[in-house]
Amino acid sequence: MIVVLKQNPNPAQLDSLIAWLEEKHIEVNKSVGTTHTILGLVGDTAAIDPDLISALGIVEDVKRVQEPYKHANRKFHPEATVVQVGDAKIGGGTLTLMAGPCTVESEAQIVEIAKRIKASGASILRGGAFKPRTSPYSYQGMGEEGIALLKTARAETGLPIAAELTDSAQLPLFADVDLIQVGARNMQNFALLGVLGRQEKPVMLMRGHCATYEEWLMSAEYIMAGGNHNVILCEGGIRSLEPSTRYALDLAAVPILRRLTHLPILVDPSHAASRSWLVPEIAPAAVAAGVDGISAEVHNDPEHAVMDGPQSLDPDTFDALAKKLTALHDYLG
Amino acid sequence: MIVVLKQNPNPAQLDSLIAWLEEKHIEVNKSVGTTHTILGLVGDTAAIDPDLISALGIVEDVKRVQEPYKHANRKFHPEATVVQVGDAKIGGGTLTLMAGPCTVESEAQIVEIAKRIKASGASILRGGAFKPRTSPYSYQGMGEEGIALLKTARAETGLPIAAELTDSAQLPLFADVDLIQVGARNMQNFALLGVLGRQEKPVMLMRGHCATYEEWLMSAEYIMAGGNHNVILCEGGIRSLEPSTRYALDLAAVPILRRLTHLPILVDPSHAASRSWLVPEIAPAAVAAGVDGISAEVHNDPEHAVMDGPQSLDPDTFDALAKKLTALHDYLG
Amino acid sequence: MIVVLKQNPNPAQLDSLIAWLEEKHIEVNKSVGTTHTILGLVGDTAAIDPDLISALGIVEDVKRVQEPYKHANRKFHPEATVVQVGDAKIGGGTLTLMAGPCTVESEAQIVEIAKRIKASGASILRGGAFKPRTSPYSYQGMGEEGIALLKTARAETGLPIAAELTDSAQLPLFADVDLIQVGARNMQNFALLGVLGRQEKPVMLMRGHCATYEEWLMSAEYIMAGGNHNVILCEGGIRSLEPSTRYALDLAAVPILRRLTHLPILVDPSHAASRSWLVPEIAPAAVAAGVDGISAEVHNDPEHAVMDGPQSLDPDTFDALAKKLTALHDYLG
Amino acid sequence: MIVVLKQNPNPAQLDSLIAWLEEKHIEVNKSVGTTHTILGLVGDTAAIDPDLISALGIVEDVKRVQEPYKHANRKFHPEATVVQVGDAKIGGGTLTLMAGPCTVESEAQIVEIAKRIKASGASILRGGAFKPRTSPYSYQGMGEEGIALLKTARAETGLPIAAELTDSAQLPLFADVDLIQVGARNMQNFALLGVLGRQEKPVMLMRGHCATYEEWLMSAEYIMAGGNHNVILCEGGIRSLEPSTRYALDLAAVPILRRLTHLPILVDPSHAASRSWLVPEIAPAAVAAGVDGISAEVHNDPEHAVMDGPQSLDPDTFDALAKKLTALHDYLG
Repeated sequence: MIVVLKQNPNPAQLDSLIAWLEEKHIEVNKSVGTTHTILGLVGDTAAIDPDLISALGIVEDVKRVQEPYKHANRKFHPEATVVQVGDAKIGGGTLTLMAGPCTVESEAQIVEIAKRIKASGASILRGGAFKPRTSPYSYQGMGEEGIALLKTARAETGLPIAAELTDSAQLPLFADVDLIQVGARNMQNFALLGVLGRQEKPVMLMRGHCATYEEWLMSAEYIMAGGNHNVILCEGGIRSLEPSTRYALDLAAVPILRRLTHLPILVDPSHAASRSWLVPEIAPAAVAAGVDGISAEVHNDPEHAVMDGPQSLDPDTFDALAKKLTALHDYLG
Repeated sequence: MIVVLKQNPNPAQLDSLIAWLEEKHIEVNKSVGTTHTILGLVGDTAAIDPDLISALGIVEDVKRVQEPYKHANRKFHPEATVVQVGDAKIGGGTLTLMAGPCTVESEAQIVEIAKRIKASGASILRGGAFKPRTSPYSYQGMGEEGIALLKTARAETGLPIAAELTDSAQLPLFADVDLIQVGARNMQNFALLGVLGRQEKPVMLMRGHCATYEEWLMSAEYIMAGGNHNVILCEGGIRSLEPSTRYALDLAAVPILRRLTHLPILVDPSHAASRSWLVPEIAPAAVAAGVDGISAEVHNDPEHAVMDGPQSLDPDTFDALAKKLTALHDYLG
Repeated sequence: MIVVLKQNPNPAQLDSLIAWLEEKHIEVNKSVGTTHTILGLVGDTAAIDPDLISALGIVEDVKRVQEPYKHANRKFHPEATVVQVGDAKIGGGTLTLMAGPCTVESEAQIVEIAKRIKASGASILRGGAFKPRTSPYSYQGMGEEGIALLKTARAETGLPIAAELTDSAQLPLFADVDLIQVGARNMQNFALLGVLGRQEKPVMLMRGHCATYEEWLMSAEYIMAGGNHNVILCEGGIRSLEPSTRYALDLAAVPILRRLTHLPILVDPSHAASRSWLVPEIAPAAVAAGVDGISAEVHNDPEHAVMDGPQSLDPDTFDALAKKLTALHDYLG
Repeated sequence: MIVVLKQNPNPAQLDSLIAWLEEKHIEVNKSVGTTHTILGLVGDTAAIDPDLISALGIVEDVKRVQEPYKHANRKFHPEATVVQVGDAKIGGGTLTLMAGPCTVESEAQIVEIAKRIKASGASILRGGAFKPRTSPYSYQGMGEEGIALLKTARAETGLPIAAELTDSAQLPLFADVDLIQVGARNMQNFALLGVLGRQEKPVMLMRGHCATYEEWLMSAEYIMAGGNHNVILCEGGIRSLEPSTRYALDLAAVPILRRLTHLPILVDPSHAASRSWLVPEIAPAAVAAGVDGISAEVHNDPEHAVMDGPQSLDPDTFDALAKKLTALHDYLG
């Protein structure tokens, strides 16, 4: 951390600041220039709140040099984390395919989809039971019954199941769900993240729609700080100025996060694209960018889907895509 | 709602769509052009999910003409809503001043601040007890003890108290808090909004950092749909491309929302500005834009504040500002 | 400027960097920490290209401490600049009203508007002759004839005239125009800025639709570096995620720029709002934020305007607004 | 185009609007609902300015159904355009590699780079001679001499040359340049686009940093409307809320634009990434998204480059990347 002081700082205040920092076992290197004095802080500066220092009258600016996340930081954990989800693995060089409908509708629907995606090579079934909707008047999902139907589909196919949890009160219902998804709108629901950090199920954390990489990693850190290191990041797009897609998929996130963190990184092209035709055209780009997996919406009958039909693939299209992505991943090595 | 069909829609599918809409008591006006056929839907289209219709193969585009919020809509409720918070009123032509520290630190601190802001004309004391922080390593607030200290300050001054609730599990602690604040990061925490809709305390809903007006009003609608109509909107800024302010204050929101909704609208310049000197310079603009009140951070000793000192006003500065804003509001009429 | 070096920098490369900087009369203060070595550069660092230094293998990061603009910087020119435009003054404590149609249409139109706005207290007539349009098929303005009609209106009323120049080739036509406007889309047309810096007419520089304050000031600096210090900044809104306004007016720009620069600052609410009813509701906020003037679109017959009718005020509405803004400015002192 | 009228529109005004539209050979289909009347306009609505209609008092909203670009529209020109640049072709199924330094520095530099990239499979040499810089104090390029050195490199290697033109006054210097680049900041410099439309050299149009797809295509339309159909689109990233990259590369632009237009589409990962290590990690994603080519910055000595060294590849890295991208393109078919 670098503290840039205002010109001619009050010497007593400066001494007091330095003493306060040294009490916290921070080493302070002072560099006096003709226009500015700069303090270089060395030590465990993640514990120092930059806001506190900025508040001081003698301080002009505080610049962090080190990342504020520890558990998620690749610097302190160079090898890639592999998260086990049922029999599936996410991370560490494989390409994991996760697929399923936006919302669970019936046993027939979810079981058929599960069978089809399994046959296509997917190793995790995703399906929504609690849906975060912008409008209170929109369909909110089947809730508990949806979770039960996912379990039925798991029993029929052996696929581990993933579903979004929208409130910590739902946690008991997820006791037998294999992967808990935190949606983009809850990425900074810190209370929820704290709860998920104090249990053991793997958590897939969607990127918030206007979150920076650092904010996203800090949200992962909330979960990890509680003791649960089974965290998967999932890029599903950010708000942009372009009106023709719901969210702009930020594929540069994949290689950049790869450097910053050891956690696995998925991409959800369906969420970003909001149109099914775009999914098979952009998913190969995500694979070429180096993702650990793809999460895609698949519906056995998109035209009659209760929700998000326009962004769902039919099983045949998913089958062709799954084969293409797997072959591409193998080709790229 | 307007449904633009693709060229040469399948007649059976079109009939099926029209029949389905008419079942839902929607009147359908068909306009056949040489390149496009357009359906104009009339009736309670708020109950129609545009996603469902977009999913159909014969549909090119769906355009909403009416706002999807009902309870919050000024069209159906022309007179301004006035929310009672203890002895204070928000809305309906008065300028309400709410002030207090980012975080409650001690009895001495919060009582002194309460006395000072009351003397300056503020009618509501705000103070944070549960703080949503980007980092799990940052100070998270005093929690229950902070709420207790706010009550002490209320007992000493008579000012109603406002505090942010970050999780529905905290609700019992807020039973005797006068105004519940929902922070920007929780604006689309729909589970939390639902819970707050099923209780009676007034709720101040901060705008999400990348939320549109409509999304914000739909979140208010979640609370109102549950039965709680005591909702106050608070603009605290949105993410922008300008790095020098934490959030960009969108003052046009005030007159635009005034047309769209009957709910009161506050502005929190401290949250947006992140620097205390900017607060007194931009707050008069919010008053001139027609807000129902200002929520500002005030600390008795900003240089030693535990959090957000840089954006807190000291009591003297707040006093001068409160007088200026009140006089300006009176001048503008 | 602060240069953060990578761990264990190559000593020969470091010596070479320091020597190179010292050759450029930059004083280098080295601060060696246990994890990072930091160089504090003191002197005329505006002449040092941070990109050059970032490129070096031993450098991790370069952080600027000082603003890169000199002529526009208030630090080096504390008193406010007042720009003379014909008989009108912009800056220095007065509130200047500039008004006129989006596009000049006819002698009768522009002369009538000029007379009306003059009667309302406006001191500069604005009118478009060369219009930057997103579509090549949209009306592009009257061009040279439009400039001639503006001069006619000036002859009739005595009001100085302002018009947008979209290409340096038009400069001869502007020889007798009192104020040259550079539109938002040309804010970083550096060739054009250079040409305008080498002539003497005052220039009003609109903020680019995704420009930061610093980029805007650097564009002003391009004009000033050429010798023309008669530059006026005009905030007309930036792109935001909110679809209901064309641009989001950033009123915090006014007090922040006031600190950063001595140049006058106007606000154009019509450009941002794109709807006339919003203009009188947001313009008082701009005045309360401390602008030096307002530039508004006024048309004698908005319903039949060739362009931008929806955002134009009629003369009666402008008259009421002008009186209100002037009185508010006087009230605020 | 769909015109949504206000409730109970004045019949005389409505008749007048319909008559005006029919005069312009637009067929008007009126659909009268209980709350809204809607006009569906059929015919050459690209010639109708939506702003004109919005201005009318009886109109609530105007919604376009058809794209406003004609020449660039794939609907009217289904086969892909192939642009010939010297001996190289861009578009139509090949992967074109364009490479070179951010700025031409010397004959030795540009000739060496040209030889190296040619050996690696690049078919066009790019190099900057006129550089658009945010600061007037930054290096602005070699100008005319830089163009001359590019020609020398072409003479030595046979590679066609591409360079950015920043002002129409430079056009004579580009008479013998094979491809003219329009930078992101000039994407809406309509005067410049008009000039480039009235000459025959191919033009590569970078996407503006906050431009929508439609605005970008409308800028291409400006060039094409002048008669020059040799236009290439180049995505180089847009502004986003993420501070760690200069621009966010929007790879979904590739498949979406492929549907909207027949023009070739390149991606410039160097411009977006601003860090060389990211270029080889994201460029394969661009190829997998279906681009017609990649434009990359290559410098023979990035550490000593005059500009943009941090984002330049060295020739060996480019060589490996070029082979990888070509093989990937062949693999994908």
